[in-house]
Amino acid sequence: MMRAARLHAYAEPLVIERVPRPEPDQGQVVVKVEGAGFCHSDLHIIDGDLKLDLILPLTLGHENAGVVAEVGHGVRAVKPGDPVAVYGGWGCGYCDMCITGTEQMCSKPNWVGLSDYDGGYAEYLLVPHARYLVPLKELEPKVAAPFTDAALTPYRAIKRALPALTPDRPVLVIGAGGLGQFGIKLLRLMTASPIIVVDVNEEKLQIAREYGAHYALDGRDPEVAAQVKDIGSGSGVGAAFDFVGADSTLELAFATTRPGGKVTQIGLAGGHADLKLFTNLPFEVMFEGTLWGSIKELREVIALADSGRLTPIELEFESLDRINAVYENLKAGKIAGRAVITP
Amino acid sequence: MMRAARLHAYAEPLVIERVPRPEPDQGQVVVKVEGAGFCHSDLHIIDGDLKLDLILPLTLGHENAGVVAEVGHGVRAVKPGDPVAVYGGWGCGYCDMCITGTEQMCSKPNWVGLSDYDGGYAEYLLVPHARYLVPLKELEPKVAAPFTDAALTPYRAIKRALPALTPDRPVLVIGAGGLGQFGIKLLRLMTASPIIVVDVNEEKLQIAREYGAHYALDGRDPEVAAQVKDIGSGSGVGAAFDFVGADSTLELAFATTRPGGKVTQIGLAGGHADLKLFTNLPFEVMFEGTLWGSIKELREVIALADSGRLTPIELEFESLDRINAVYENLKAGKIAGRAVITP
Amino acid sequence: MMRAARLHAYAEPLVIERVPRPEPDQGQVVVKVEGAGFCHSDLHIIDGDLKLDLILPLTLGHENAGVVAEVGHGVRAVKPGDPVAVYGGWGCGYCDMCITGTEQMCSKPNWVGLSDYDGGYAEYLLVPHARYLVPLKELEPKVAAPFTDAALTPYRAIKRALPALTPDRPVLVIGAGGLGQFGIKLLRLMTASPIIVVDVNEEKLQIAREYGAHYALDGRDPEVAAQVKDIGSGSGVGAAFDFVGADSTLELAFATTRPGGKVTQIGLAGGHADLKLFTNLPFEVMFEGTLWGSIKELREVIALADSGRLTPIELEFESLDRINAVYENLKAGKIAGRAVITP
Amino acid sequence: MMRAARLHAYAEPLVIERVPRPEPDQGQVVVKVEGAGFCHSDLHIIDGDLKLDLILPLTLGHENAGVVAEVGHGVRAVKPGDPVAVYGGWGCGYCDMCITGTEQMCSKPNWVGLSDYDGGYAEYLLVPHARYLVPLKELEPKVAAPFTDAALTPYRAIKRALPALTPDRPVLVIGAGGLGQFGIKLLRLMTASPIIVVDVNEEKLQIAREYGAHYALDGRDPEVAAQVKDIGSGSGVGAAFDFVGADSTLELAFATTRPGGKVTQIGLAGGHADLKLFTNLPFEVMFEGTLWGSIKELREVIALADSGRLTPIELEFESLDRINAVYENLKAGKIAGRAVITP
Repeated sequence: MMRAARLHAYAEPLVIERVPRPEPDQGQVVVKVEGAGFCHSDLHIIDGDLKLDLILPLTLGHENAGVVAEVGHGVRAVKPGDPVAVYGGWGCGYCDMCITGTEQMCSKPNWVGLSDYDGGYAEYLLVPHARYLVPLKELEPKVAAPFTDAALTPYRAIKRALPALTPDRPVLVIGAGGLGQFGIKLLRLMTASPIIVVDVNEEKLQIAREYGAHYALDGRDPEVAAQVKDIGSGSGVGAAFDFVGADSTLELAFATTRPGGKVTQIGLAGGHADLKLFTNLPFEVMFEGTLWGSIKELREVIALADSGRLTPIELEFESLDRINAVYENLKAGKIAGRAVITP
Repeated sequence: MMRAARLHAYAEPLVIERVPRPEPDQGQVVVKVEGAGFCHSDLHIIDGDLKLDLILPLTLGHENAGVVAEVGHGVRAVKPGDPVAVYGGWGCGYCDMCITGTEQMCSKPNWVGLSDYDGGYAEYLLVPHARYLVPLKELEPKVAAPFTDAALTPYRAIKRALPALTPDRPVLVIGAGGLGQFGIKLLRLMTASPIIVVDVNEEKLQIAREYGAHYALDGRDPEVAAQVKDIGSGSGVGAAFDFVGADSTLELAFATTRPGGKVTQIGLAGGHADLKLFTNLPFEVMFEGTLWGSIKELREVIALADSGRLTPIELEFESLDRINAVYENLKAGKIAGRAVITP
Repeated sequence: MMRAARLHAYAEPLVIERVPRPEPDQGQVVVKVEGAGFCHSDLHIIDGDLKLDLILPLTLGHENAGVVAEVGHGVRAVKPGDPVAVYGGWGCGYCDMCITGTEQMCSKPNWVGLSDYDGGYAEYLLVPHARYLVPLKELEPKVAAPFTDAALTPYRAIKRALPALTPDRPVLVIGAGGLGQFGIKLLRLMTASPIIVVDVNEEKLQIAREYGAHYALDGRDPEVAAQVKDIGSGSGVGAAFDFVGADSTLELAFATTRPGGKVTQIGLAGGHADLKLFTNLPFEVMFEGTLWGSIKELREVIALADSGRLTPIELEFESLDRINAVYENLKAGKIAGRAVITP
Repeated sequence: MMRAARLHAYAEPLVIERVPRPEPDQGQVVVKVEGAGFCHSDLHIIDGDLKLDLILPLTLGHENAGVVAEVGHGVRAVKPGDPVAVYGGWGCGYCDMCITGTEQMCSKPNWVGLSDYDGGYAEYLLVPHARYLVPLKELEPKVAAPFTDAALTPYRAIKRALPALTPDRPVLVIGAGGLGQFGIKLLRLMTASPIIVVDVNEEKLQIAREYGAHYALDGRDPEVAAQVKDIGSGSGVGAAFDFVGADSTLELAFATTRPGGKVTQIGLAGGHADLKLFTNLPFEVMFEGTLWGSIKELREVIALADSGRLTPIELEFESLDRINAVYENLKAGKIAGRAVITP
C-alpha cells in the first residue's frame, strides 16, 4: 500500500488516503515519486472548470520525477535506482500523432494523472512504457519535476515559432507566471530576439528582468500595446506568446504582432480570440494553441537542465500532507514560481 | 490620351473617360492592356465596404496582362512587343517584406489599381519596374490576366499549407467561385490529397466535380460538418481553405480540421473567427489569412499556365464599355468563372 | 513448421527448408505472408556486397504484406483475418530516431529480414509490434507488398525535397527501375514539376513516358547533361533523384542541378560523390542520401495505393520455389518492374 | 578624384593610385568608405587561385561600411551623412534568386569589388541601389564593416542549419579564424547547443574558449574525431560547420555528424568531399556549401551588432597605404581576428 492524494469530487479538497502500490506488467516501470509539480491547470481541474471527463476518484499530478523502483519484463532502457524525469503526455502509441512522436496530441490520450492512469501525487507511479522516462545525470528528481511541463510547454511553443523569431524583431511574452518565466529563460537560450514581457504584477515583472527580459511592461497601462509596437519599430513583434489566454491578452497579442508573424496561445484562462481580417487579424499572422511537448522535446529540455544551461525557476517544496494548502496558495496568487509536492 | 474606367465616388458606377496616356520614366514600362480580370474584391471596393483609403478618382483593375508598349531608360528584361502578365502587389522595394520577395505584404503598399497607381481598366498601364512583368510564351495575355490574382492567391495559400496536405488526409475547399475553382485545379496539380468541396450553389458544385474534386457537398445541409469529418476518418481534414470568409464558413473550417492541421482564410466576406481553445479551436491548428502572392509565385503560376498544365477557368470577355454591366452581373452571382475586361 | 527461403552463405543460392512457425508473444503479431517483393538490394545482400553483418542462416524479404494469422496478448489494433502491409524498418522504439517517428533510422536497427528478425520469404512472419502493420481496405496483400519499399523509398525522398520542387523548374529522375518508376508516378501525383527521366534502357524510358515523364532521355548520349540543363532554362533542375547511385549518375545529378536545388541519392550502386565548391558543387545545393521511409509515410503511401490514386508498377508473381530463378532474372536485368514472391 | 588600391595583375601587389570619384545616377548612392575588411578570400583572388574572371584593373574590397556622401535622384531611404553598412552581394534584381531576396546567389552576380563594380579599398564607393545599405545607429562604420561578410556568412550558414541544432546535441565548428570566431559567438546567441571547436592553432582555441565554446580541441590530435563523437554521446554532432574547407576538415565533419544531421561548408580552401553511402556519408546527413548572406540577413546581423548583443571580433585598423602589408600579414597567419582598411 502507499499514500496518495486523490480527487473524489470536483471543487472539494483532495483526499489523502492509502491505496494499493502499483506493480509493473511487461514493459512497464514503477517510479518512486520524489517530486510532483503542482500545476496551475490542476486548479481548473479540481474546480471542475476544465472538463476532461475524468473517472473519479483519481490521483492527480502530471509533472513528475523520481527514482525507478521496479521494472517489468523486457524493460532494458532503465533499471531500479535510476533517477528519471517522467514524460506525461502518454498516448495510444498507434495513431498518427503518436507514431510521429507527438504523443501528447494522441487521438485517445492517456495522460498521466488526467486519464485512467493515476498521477504523481502519491508515493509510487506506474509508467506504462520505458520510453516515457528520461534519465537524469546531475539534476535531483524533485528539481527536475517542473521541467516536464512548466519548461516543456514553453519549449515546444518557442520551437514551433522559431522561423518568426529573428534577431531584428522583438518577441512578446504575456504573463510571467511559472510557464512564462521558463519561456523567458528559454527565449534567452534559444533565440537572439529582444524580449518584451507584459504582466500586471510588479513582482513578476521584476523576476522577468532578472531572467533576461529586455523590456518589462505593466499590462495595466492603457498604452501598453502602443509601447510594444514602438519597441518593434512601429510595426510590432515577430512573435507573441500568450501564457494567460484571456480575452484581453489575446487581443494584445494580435494588436502587436506584425504581418507575417506568429501568435501562440499557451495559457488556458478561457479567453476568446475574435479575429477579423483587415480589422484585427494582420495578414499572414499564424495563430495556434500549442499543447505540452513531445518525448524528444522533453529529452532536449532535460539536456539543457541537466547540464545547468537551463536553471530552475523558484521552487517551493511541500509534503503530500500540505497539498490542499498548496492549492489554496496557488489560487491566492501566493506562489511566485512553482510548488513541488515531495510525497 | 486613352480611355479608362475610373472610380469617382464609392457606390457609384465607374466613369469611362479620356485620361493622359502614361509615359515610362527610367526603369519603368508601359503595357498595352489586353485583359484585366474583374475581381470579386472590386465589388467591395466600389461599394466602399473594404476601406482602403484610395485617392479618387482612380482607375481600378489589378489582374492585368498585355503587351509591352514602351520601356524607360535602363530596362533590359523586356522590350516592346513582348506579351506579359503583370504582377500587381507592388511594394516599396525596401522594407523587410519587399526585400525578402513578398512585395504584396509591403508595409507601404503601392498595389496596382489600389493605391496611387492606376490599374488596368484602361488602354495602357504604367508599371514602375520590369520585375513586375512575367513574359508569356504561349498564353494569350487576355487569358493570362486572371492568373495574376484568381490563380496566384490560391496558389500561395496552398503552397504555405503544403506540410499539412498529406495524401492520407482530405483537404477542404469552401466556396467554388473563381478563386476556389483555381484552388481545386491547383490542389489536383500540387498535392495528392482527396479534395472535398463545399458550396451552396449546385452549378458550382458541378464545376468543382469537373475540375477534380473527389467530394462535392451542399453547404446548406445541416450535416455538412459531420460529412466532412466522416470523410476524414472521423477526425477531420488536414487543411481547410475558406474562399468565402463568412462567419459560418470559418466556423465550418474549424469544426472540420483535425488537431495539427491548418485553416487558411482567403475570402473577404467580412466574417469573424471566434476561437476558444478546448472548445472550437483544435490544438495546434494553425490559422492564417494569406494575401495574394509573390513575384516568384506568379512566375510559378505562369509556368504552369503557359505550358498548359494549369488551364483557365471559364472566362467571359467584355469590352471596357460594358464594365458596369459586369459589376452588376458579378453582384447578381451570374458569372460562373471570371469576367475579363478587354480595353 | 513452415517453409522459408534462407540465406546460409553469401554468394550461394537461398535454401528452401522447413523451420518452426513463429508464435506471437505479448504485443506481437504473426502475419501469413501473401506477397514479399524481391528487391534489388537483396542481390547485393545475397552476393555479400552490402556488408550488414547478418547472422546466418537468415530468412530474407523486407517488402511484405499478408493477412493477420495470430495476435499476442494486448494487441488491439489488428485481429486475425485483417489484410495488412508490413512496415519493415523496425527499430528499438526508444532512441531519438524511433521516438520521433523515423524508426528506419534507428541507431540499433532491427529491420525485418535484415537483422535478428527473419523476413517474408516464408509462409509466416513474426511482427514485433502492431504499429508496424498498415491495414488494407481494397488492395490485395500480394499487390501491396512492393509499396512497402519500392514505393515508400521514393515517397520519402520526394517528400523531403518538396521545397525544391516548384512548378517552374523541372525535376530529374535518374534510373527508371522499380523505385524510379514509382518515383515518376509519385512526382506526378505530389508535384506540378515537369519530369525529366534519364535511363540507358529504351524499354525503361518507354515505361517512364507511360507513367507521365515529360522528357525521357538516353543516358548514353554524351550531351545528356546539356540537354537536361537546357530543359531547365540553362540553369538546371530544381531537384535530382539518383535511383542508381553510381559515380556517373551522381556526377550527372550535380552537373544539372541549379544553385539552391537538391540532389538526393537513393540508389546504392556504390558510387562516390566527389564534390568541390566553385567546381562541381553548386552553391547551396543540398545533398543527402535518404533511407527507406517512416511508418507514417507508409500509411500515406498505402492511402494512395488503397484508393487507387497510386497504381502498382508491373508485377510478376512467383512461388517461393522459384526464388533463386527470380534472383537470376533480376541480376540479368530481365525484370521490368517488380517480382513478388507468393509463399 | 580619389585614392584607391587596385588589382592590376594577379599575384602582384595592389597599386594605390588616383581614380575618378564616382557620382550617383538615379537611384544610386555614393558612400564615403570608413572601413573595408580585408577578407581571407582576397588572398585567393589576388593570388589568382579563385578564378572569378575579373576585368582588371579592379578596386577590391567587399566588406564595407561608411557614411552616405551623395544620393542620386529618387533615393529616399538614406540621406547624406547617414552611417551605413554596405551589403555586398549585389545582383541583377530580376532573376529568381534576386526576386526572392537572395541576391548573393544571383545568376548574373554584380558583387561589389568582385565584378564590374569597384569595391571599398578606396575613399568612395558607388552603391547601385539604396536597398544595399543598412543604416547604423550606434556602431561606428569602421567597426561595422566586417559584419557584412565575416559575421553575415556564418549567420546564414547557422540559420539554414537551425533545424539540426537542438540543445541535446553538440555542434561542431572547424576552424576558429575570423568567420569561425563569429560563428561561435552567433551559435551562443542563436542556439542552446553545446559548441565544440576544432583548430590546429592554440591561440585560436583560446579565443574560441573566450567566445563561449564548451569544448576546444586540437585538430592535430589523431583521436579528434573520436573525441567529438564521444561528446556527442557516441553518435556524433547534430551539425558541423567547416570554416576551412580542406580535404581533411571535410572528412572530419562527415566522420562526426550523426545520421539525420547537417554538414555545411563555408571555407574555400579547395578541399573535396568524397562521399559514399554506407561508407562515409551517414544516411540523411544533408551537405551544402552556403554562400555569404541575404540583405535581410545583414539587417538581422546589424540589428544584433548595433544593439551590442553581437560584439566584434578582434579588429586591426590599417590605412590604405598599408594594404599590401596587411596582405602579407594575413598570408603569414599573423592576424588573429580581422584587419580593416580605413581609407
